[in-house]
Amino acid sequence: MRLQLSTWPDIQQYLEHSHGIIVPIGSTEQHGPNGLIGTDAICPEVVAHEVGKRIGVLVAPTLSIGMAQHHLAFPGSISFRPTTLIAVIRDVVQSLARHGFRNIYFFNGHGGNVATVNAAFAEIHSEASFTGSGTSAPSLKLANWYMGRRVQAISRELFADSEGAHATPSEISLTWHAYPDHAQPMTLEPRLAPSSHFGDARDYRQRFPDGRIGSDPSLASIEAGTRLFEASVEDTIEDYRAFVQTS
Amino acid sequence: MRLQLSTWPDIQQYLEHSHGIIVPIGSTEQHGPNGLIGTDAICPEVVAHEVGKRIGVLVAPTLSIGMAQHHLAFPGSISFRPTTLIAVIRDVVQSLARHGFRNIYFFNGHGGNVATVNAAFAEIHSEASFTGSGTSAPSLKLANWYMGRRVQAISRELFADSEGAHATPSEISLTWHAYPDHAQPMTLEPRLAPSSHFGDARDYRQRFPDGRIGSDPSLASIEAGTRLFEASVEDTIEDYRAFVQTS
Amino acid sequence: MRLQLSTWPDIQQYLEHSHGIIVPIGSTEQHGPNGLIGTDAICPEVVAHEVGKRIGVLVAPTLSIGMAQHHLAFPGSISFRPTTLIAVIRDVVQSLARHGFRNIYFFNGHGGNVATVNAAFAEIHSEASFTGSGTSAPSLKLANWYMGRRVQAISRELFADSEGAHATPSEISLTWHAYPDHAQPMTLEPRLAPSSHFGDARDYRQRFPDGRIGSDPSLASIEAGTRLFEASVEDTIEDYRAFVQTS
Amino acid sequence: MRLQLSTWPDIQQYLEHSHGIIVPIGSTEQHGPNGLIGTDAICPEVVAHEVGKRIGVLVAPTLSIGMAQHHLAFPGSISFRPTTLIAVIRDVVQSLARHGFRNIYFFNGHGGNVATVNAAFAEIHSEASFTGSGTSAPSLKLANWYMGRRVQAISRELFADSEGAHATPSEISLTWHAYPDHAQPMTLEPRLAPSSHFGDARDYRQRFPDGRIGSDPSLASIEAGTRLFEASVEDTIEDYRAFVQTS
Amino acid sequence: MRLQLSTWPDIQQYLEHSHGIIVPIGSTEQHGPNGLIGTDAICPEVVAHEVGKRIGVLVAPTLSIGMAQHHLAFPGSISFRPTTLIAVIRDVVQSLARHGFRNIYFFNGHGGNVATVNAAFAEIHSEASFTGSGTSAPSLKLANWYMGRRVQAISRELFADSEGAHATPSEISLTWHAYPDHAQPMTLEPRLAPSSHFGDARDYRQRFPDGRIGSDPSLASIEAGTRLFEASVEDTIEDYRAFVQTS
Amino acid sequence: MRLQLSTWPDIQQYLEHSHGIIVPIGSTEQHGPNGLIGTDAICPEVVAHEVGKRIGVLVAPTLSIGMAQHHLAFPGSISFRPTTLIAVIRDVVQSLARHGFRNIYFFNGHGGNVATVNAAFAEIHSEASFTGSGTSAPSLKLANWYMGRRVQAISRELFADSEGAHATPSEISLTWHAYPDHAQPMTLEPRLAPSSHFGDARDYRQRFPDGRIGSDPSLASIEAGTRLFEASVEDTIEDYRAFVQTS
Repeated sequence: MRLQLSTWPDIQQYLEHSHGIIVPIGSTEQHGPNGLIGTDAICPEVVAHEVGKRIGVLVAPTLSIGMAQHHLAFPGSISFRPTTLIAVIRDVVQSLARHGFRNIYFFNGHGGNVATVNAAFAEIHSEASFTGSGTSAPSLKLANWYMGRRVQAISRELFADSEGAHATPSEISLTWHAYPDHAQPMTLEPRLAPSSHFGDARDYRQRFPDGRIGSDPSLASIEAGTRLFEASVEDTIEDYRAFVQTS
Repeated sequence: MRLQLSTWPDIQQYLEHSHGIIVPIGSTEQHGPNGLIGTDAICPEVVAHEVGKRIGVLVAPTLSIGMAQHHLAFPGSISFRPTTLIAVIRDVVQSLARHGFRNIYFFNGHGGNVATVNAAFAEIHSEASFTGSGTSAPSLKLANWYMGRRVQAISRELFADSEGAHATPSEISLTWHAYPDHAQPMTLEPRLAPSSHFGDARDYRQRFPDGRIGSDPSLASIEAGTRLFEASVEDTIEDYRAFVQTS
Repeated sequence: MRLQLSTWPDIQQYLEHSHGIIVPIGSTEQHGPNGLIGTDAICPEVVAHEVGKRIGVLVAPTLSIGMAQHHLAFPGSISFRPTTLIAVIRDVVQSLARHGFRNIYFFNGHGGNVATVNAAFAEIHSEASFTGSGTSAPSLKLANWYMGRRVQAISRELFADSEGAHATPSEISLTWHAYPDHAQPMTLEPRLAPSSHFGDARDYRQRFPDGRIGSDPSLASIEAGTRLFEASVEDTIEDYRAFVQTS
Repeated sequence: MRLQLSTWPDIQQYLEHSHGIIVPIGSTEQHGPNGLIGTDAICPEVVAHEVGKRIGVLVAPTLSIGMAQHHLAFPGSISFRPTTLIAVIRDVVQSLARHGFRNIYFFNGHGGNVATVNAAFAEIHSEASFTGSGTSAPSLKLANWYMGRRVQAISRELFADSEGAHATPSEISLTWHAYPDHAQPMTLEPRLAPSSHFGDARDYRQRFPDGRIGSDPSLASIEAGTRLFEASVEDTIEDYRAFVQTS
Repeated sequence: MRLQLSTWPDIQQYLEHSHGIIVPIGSTEQHGPNGLIGTDAICPEVVAHEVGKRIGVLVAPTLSIGMAQHHLAFPGSISFRPTTLIAVIRDVVQSLARHGFRNIYFFNGHGGNVATVNAAFAEIHSEASFTGSGTSAPSLKLANWYMGRRVQAISRELFADSEGAHATPSEISLTWHAYPDHAQPMTLEPRLAPSSHFGDARDYRQRFPDGRIGSDPSLASIEAGTRLFEASVEDTIEDYRAFVQTS
Repeated sequence: MRLQLSTWPDIQQYLEHSHGIIVPIGSTEQHGPNGLIGTDAICPEVVAHEVGKRIGVLVAPTLSIGMAQHHLAFPGSISFRPTTLIAVIRDVVQSLARHGFRNIYFFNGHGGNVATVNAAFAEIHSEASFTGSGTSAPSLKLANWYMGRRVQAISRELFADSEGAHATPSEISLTWHAYPDHAQPMTLEPRLAPSSHFGDARDYRQRFPDGRIGSDPSLASIEAGTRLFEASVEDTIEDYRAFVQTS
């Protein structure tokens, strides 16, 4: 059930029996020579939409732009500053809380979002914590699709040490499952990209000239993507249900 | 050409011959008893994607959430505060400017965004204006799909005084063209919603109990949506080209 | 009745029978070769003071500085960033609301303020809209003196296509009515200034070398100013009364 | 020479021989039972205008609203939060610096502004100090009219221990000199208002029920105001000249 | 009694009989050729800890960084922008208010903090003042150790006109009392540093090449520090008690 | 070598051969029934000071307050909002960068700081990343003392599953090593505190009534603290040296 394709009376009815919602969050950033710029938004979006269909949970519009300052030296990357993303998350949560949503599950596709989204959660909770007021913010969770139990098993099985940390064969496979017309198999040189820490965008591009970190996306395939998709849908149904029950 | 479905080398190549981009911007807010909550994002998105296909212009991911504080008393509406939306637009523009985009065309579906987006443009220009520095921000334009010449002619022809100001038959028709499975023809009571100014969300809901302003969306149809879609695509191609040439 | 020239017991008494106030808002910015830098503040101020005298409505001190980033390449212009002006308006409204004012009428002399002031209104309303709390902000209106019905009739009659968009003969006439010693009739070359869109201050100055947009202020006169003054006073009394009655 | 009553070519010419400007800054706040709400803005404004006439220095429009949170329990008081006032001062200084002003003299009428204006100066200087960049902000000074040497001598002579700290006979006299029609001589009970520290607006009103602190404004007179006006003009000419020469 | 060395049950117990706390606040900034960079934090810290021991008042951890933008041209200085320091103070006060502290005594070692800390107090009080809500912030005071009655008597006696305004023999003596191993007696050239106003860091360093203002720290001694320490402890006990009783 | 106990000429000399600095960062928050409120600041501080002594690296003053909103329902806890802590870190880094420090090593004692400090690093890097300017921020690292290799080995050996996540026997042992007079051995009921996720302060206190998460601090001892201290010093020397060499 997609929020964008619902009417307000639909949502009013939904809230009578559920107070949970999934908010896909990604990024718009380079994903190496053959990875789509929308990879980190596409992955959680397609999984969330399928979860929405299977178990009837409401899915908010995807937050397609995240914290990607380190990718800005590659054309096409768009980033929010952390303080902007904190304001974005705060306003989304407060809007949803206004309507009575009590369990807000951010379903994330971008490692670079994790610190800032958690800081945003703490900023939101601070309002109640500083005043000691009676009303708390909704229960908030950030889940990363690539951290799911079933997903990680498949990644290890298929890609092992070639998975890497950015522009991974797993995420690229999943986008090709979603958009098979955009699959661009390609051999890369070096096969495995380098790995290290990094700072700003200039530093990132010097360390990782084609954008990848530690990965070999030449291993990506639509077939792998289809397996990962199904695995992530199952992981997410399980995790979302646990979240709603315990929070 | 969609940014999300491109790779960074694609964008590098694109920038060799063009410095323009379309950024669809909408809202996630109630649109009356049978209008989709995503109406204001869907309308500019589907038109922009078609424009991208026809003339090869790059289209950024849709900014699906806008300034909709007055709709927050209806379940499902999500809003950014104006200062949040200003930060969002600033970061998007600065990211694109970093790559060399010089003509950024915000293609909008929500009247409530207009003031804040224009304030954001002024905030962005202020950086250069206050310092007198040599580098200016890109050329920025906000265009509303519902203000196109061809679109307005069709709206007047089909809906005349029943168009109204919110949850209009025109925008609802266009979303039904895009998502025919979600078309929900419906007779409403009163046929024409009331019209007036408004303040905050509580005030809005008191004045417009079912969410519409001055409109009769029972007149909406997929056929009208198809005509409006084609008209808006033509309006936008014309207007975008003029923007790029004169800025 | 001017706030600055009242005592607090005067205001306490005023609030027993009225909850309305007029806040003149303008700008401090170049107005072409012979227009006063204070034009946009002077115009609403002198009209508001007269309205205050005639119908006893309270008039706040003029907010003399507005959003004028595009004029900063001309000496003497002073601007607030949009986010600064939003904070200014918010604090003024919250101060007045604290005392029980329920109808706050911003009377404006500068087109460049419109987007930001409306964004500020939305920012103010957001507080109640996001929380759903019981107390709303006061009713807020932005009215532009140059948009009044009677004023526009005179402008069309006297200046027609020579009115233009900045440093107009109408506004300059009105300042000369207010400060006849500062009237500087002058023939300009070209007679009619160019018209176009613009971005930051450097861009503005390149497009409009003497500061005017589309206007011929050589047509300005004290006599025209006197007629416009009287017309604006009448427009404003009518509009303010309608505002207070319907909000 | 008033900025509001000048044209931009006037200012261009002025900047050829001077880089100094006076910015009157005050407050809009209760001043006891018979003091004008605009007292703190009127005092520096009338003195600055006279200084402008006598020595040809440029005078900016008065910043009529200051930091007056502690007065908000009295009807008619308007305040900026400190962070708002810091943004206001920063934008004014940056606008003036853009044109080449190098000596900006804030001429103040409100003790409650002093801390925040000084914090604003430090905020402005921080830009250059943190980066170590070559361009510094202009030289900035905050001068209080009531601290002038000649002014203080007259206050002591005329009012001695009845001067107090808020709604003082000196400032009220000066406003009556400026607006003799608004002089409201009045005997107050108690003759001398109480004195103490204070916190927020509620606390202030509990401690100072009629708004005065430690003062007896029944001693105010137009005659005293005329003497103070002349003294302040002389003090200010002297102090402004010293500022421009040493900075 | 130090907060950092207490448990939460200790503080719960403390709050049953007292609602006061001392918060030492200083700066991390150059103090001339032989003064410690931590001088302004060390001085209030050591005095506050002793006061805590003698009268059992709770002492918060020292806020070691203050507003020191003008010192940033000297290696080792660290500064907060005024707006950052305002946020710091606000969060500390709101945290303490949450637990029931009603008397918060900021004990300061740095003149450069005074304006910003007072602006922060006003920002904190604004919350209650703008809304008129029933709950006020705690009572707040900023006290400077070097302004104590006994301390000033000793400074005048020992150092007279050689005390100066920055890197004074008094503060350096007190740090040597606290850290005798770091005493570095030194003769300076010129004996007395220059005095004047200043702006940003570059300007400061040009005017005061070795960092001192108007002082002769060659007069500093451990013995003087010990006398000043004892004097400041007594001053502070007296002043803190008066604060708690009257607020 | 401690920054607070150095003079500016000392730092000038230091910068001739090194561009690295350690900034201890902790928190002021409840640590269960017998843990010190300063635990998270004390741990990194004492280790950093020893590292400073052994290898001559400069150590900044400890940032004693961190992001601890979830602890605010326990008396004595003080927290910064995430946006405040971001501003704090930004100003500290920019101050140090001004002097030429290129390797800034934040040495942390509080898990709750991790997300916000990493968001702060991204906020700092954004400045260069968005503009593409030539100057990058310094190299930044956040290291947690409790994650050191040697430290974790000892924790596992001594406390195994009783270590838990907050108020752990390891951190409490280390504070007792530092402040043996404040060791308060105590048996707690239940022996092992509960474990779960949490939201705001009220939620935290309901889930963890005495403040601990999953730990049994009755196992803490001075002896364990001494071993952990030595291990952490060695871990940190190794990690700091690697950081300086590779960044």
